[in-house]
Amino acid sequence: MSSTDEVLSANQQYAANFDQGNLPLAPVKNLAILACMDARLSVEQALGLKTGDAHIIRNAGGIATEDALRSLIISHHLLGTQEFIVINHTDCGMGTLTEDQLLEKLEEKTGVSAVTPAHFHTFKDVESNVRRQVARIKNHPYVRDIPVRGFVYDVKSGKLNEVSEEGSRVSRQTVSRQTA
Amino acid sequence: MSSTDEVLSANQQYAANFDQGNLPLAPVKNLAILACMDARLSVEQALGLKTGDAHIIRNAGGIATEDALRSLIISHHLLGTQEFIVINHTDCGMGTLTEDQLLEKLEEKTGVSAVTPAHFHTFKDVESNVRRQVARIKNHPYVRDIPVRGFVYDVKSGKLNEVSEEGSRVSRQTVSRQTA
Repeated sequence: MSSTDEVLSANQQYAANFDQGNLPLAPVKNLAILACMDARLSVEQALGLKTGDAHIIRNAGGIATEDALRSLIISHHLLGTQEFIVINHTDCGMGTLTEDQLLEKLEEKTGVSAVTPAHFHTFKDVESNVRRQVARIKNHPYVRDIPVRGFVYDVKSGKLNEVSEEGSRVSRQTVSRQTA
Repeated sequence: MSSTDEVLSANQQYAANFDQGNLPLAPVKNLAILACMDARLSVEQALGLKTGDAHIIRNAGGIATEDALRSLIISHHLLGTQEFIVINHTDCGMGTLTEDQLLEKLEEKTGVSAVTPAHFHTFKDVESNVRRQVARIKNHPYVRDIPVRGFVYDVKSGKLNEVSEEGSRVSRQTVSRQTA
């Protein structure tokens, strides 16, 4: 039995007991979450969210790509969300390779040389990466007034740890290390 | 209390009872799901998935954008998933406006004229939209061998309804209606 058939079978059971058919289109908690796609992060459970509470946007890394920004813009302007949360996590696959190593690996495995996407958004330090995504959202002219907070989810403990906004200081340190 | 503070408080409880700290990085069911961000769709619950089972990629509409393809490529080539599922749903906000109407609305609300994203991926017919996303994935050279099945989630019943692969026939019908 394929995994797809398994989830379809589970969905029959879910639908048989379903009693949430009258939820509003707009999220009840006026909240949108941008998180990594990682299987070990169950966003709703980990954040105590019920069906209908929040928009959940997820991609590899939890990156504020153009597509994630598109989704956040729609979330706020069409469906009224007023708070954004960004979640990356410990032990992320996106931290295991550099951009060049990933492209090489894909080319080697598939025999096809670089196509879209142009950029895979690998990263080295997860806290800096969260700060970068929060900054990207805050700098977008369509959503710059929305409060955004960033977190690292610890896959070992299940805990969300907030990332302080120290982007500029960290950048200066990086520069001084590189020139040292 | 902000919604963000509410979810942080809920997370403390979650972490206090957390016993999933030893899950593997790769999804247990070798499955990746691309779904809409809609608050009324609880992907894990609706599909009977446990923490660790599957990658979950979500954006406005459940669209196979460059970013979603990036995530699916990483899911398969770095983390070994072997099946993809695409889920759109009934009563989607992305079906309420055309691309032009959405851009006008954003410009009117923000006073800023069109910036990125270049395209918002609104759609008219949800089944055709699912077929289009499945086709986009199947045509990407990095993941073209992975089985992909498409579904419409019914927000009233909680049920996943499979979308048959009739893309070309539907296109012909559309053409004949338009030229009739």
